[in-house]
Amino acid sequence: MNENLNFIENIKPEDIEKRSFEIIGDELGKRGIVLPEEYSHIIKRCIHTSADFDYAETMYFSPEVLDRIMGALKSGATIITDTKMAQSGINKKKLNELGVEVSCYISDEDVASQSKERGLTRSFVSMEKALGIEGPVIFAIGNAPTALLSIVEMYNNGVLQPAAVIGVPVGFVNVVESKELLIDSGIPCIVNKGRKGGSNIAACIVNAIQYNM
Amino acid sequence: MNENLNFIENIKPEDIEKRSFEIIGDELGKRGIVLPEEYSHIIKRCIHTSADFDYAETMYFSPEVLDRIMGALKSGATIITDTKMAQSGINKKKLNELGVEVSCYISDEDVASQSKERGLTRSFVSMEKALGIEGPVIFAIGNAPTALLSIVEMYNNGVLQPAAVIGVPVGFVNVVESKELLIDSGIPCIVNKGRKGGSNIAACIVNAIQYNM
Repeated sequence: MNENLNFIENIKPEDIEKRSFEIIGDELGKRGIVLPEEYSHIIKRCIHTSADFDYAETMYFSPEVLDRIMGALKSGATIITDTKMAQSGINKKKLNELGVEVSCYISDEDVASQSKERGLTRSFVSMEKALGIEGPVIFAIGNAPTALLSIVEMYNNGVLQPAAVIGVPVGFVNVVESKELLIDSGIPCIVNKGRKGGSNIAACIVNAIQYNM
Repeated sequence: MNENLNFIENIKPEDIEKRSFEIIGDELGKRGIVLPEEYSHIIKRCIHTSADFDYAETMYFSPEVLDRIMGALKSGATIITDTKMAQSGINKKKLNELGVEVSCYISDEDVASQSKERGLTRSFVSMEKALGIEGPVIFAIGNAPTALLSIVEMYNNGVLQPAAVIGVPVGFVNVVESKELLIDSGIPCIVNKGRKGGSNIAACIVNAIQYNM
């Protein structure tokens, strides 16, 4: 490399992630934060993805949600995301081996036309395509609170029983409320309470879980 | 919708984003933050994407960088990202009309093999494929500091003249340093100083610029 780059810490490509997680662990220690051991790999990966230590304080895990997600992945679940970005950020290598498909219906033509007709978001309508899926379904929602509303509505109506929902939409309109609704629904879920989240966070939670299996 | 959802603010799909930006504007006002007018649409969209008001204080824009980026987009530039997630998050509709292509070489086989041979990250090597591109190149880097190192090295060696670099990698190892290196290089750039950034932020900056053209 160029001599101008000498002040950069010299580190092998394969060691960068390990070093990052060490730094995250050190900083959590300095802040006096002890993560719940069962979930620390997930919370640390959210911090790794965002460089935002708020995630150490705001993540919620419903009882046994990890067992449910890992069980569903092992039996070839379908993961449904609300954005192409989340779909794209999920590492497919191991999932392919497990027979897990990662789907996103947000750009489907029937979703667009129904959304217009019914005055609902495309995110809301795209979740309803889960009803046609055989086998367990895991939702990974990083963008749209209306996607969570759609899932909870189908669950409350008794037509959908998700294996689990990763509910980490981000933003300012109905985001906080949709996450509370999900938690209160009784659906097994992982949520980042508050406004923060994102497609990258939804993807990284799925990755954290599969890398630990 | 189900009656359980009644406490959610009732808002039309097409108004959600507008309402979000109003809330962001209000909160910036309450915090006494006045954004530079020329860049406020970009900074607000970063906050919209992350729900993180830190972006109001840490974004850097080199002189005339927006003119350069808009000029390049109008003349059919290629946008190169360091992740499939950033590539996927960039809205293609208007870019297609402008003849702009959005490319990401991170998963290319020759990138993987060279990366192994040379002991460099795939991100570093994937940037070198820009050298084969005709016409202006804009980089949108949301993940890998080594991608920025690669770009700066090619620039310093006189072989690459990017139209601009959106340099918002996220993380803990060499991230802060790589951004400072980019700023000091003299390459026209948009940077979020510090550790924060991400593929979603890289994509949203491209989107903020094109939506305002």
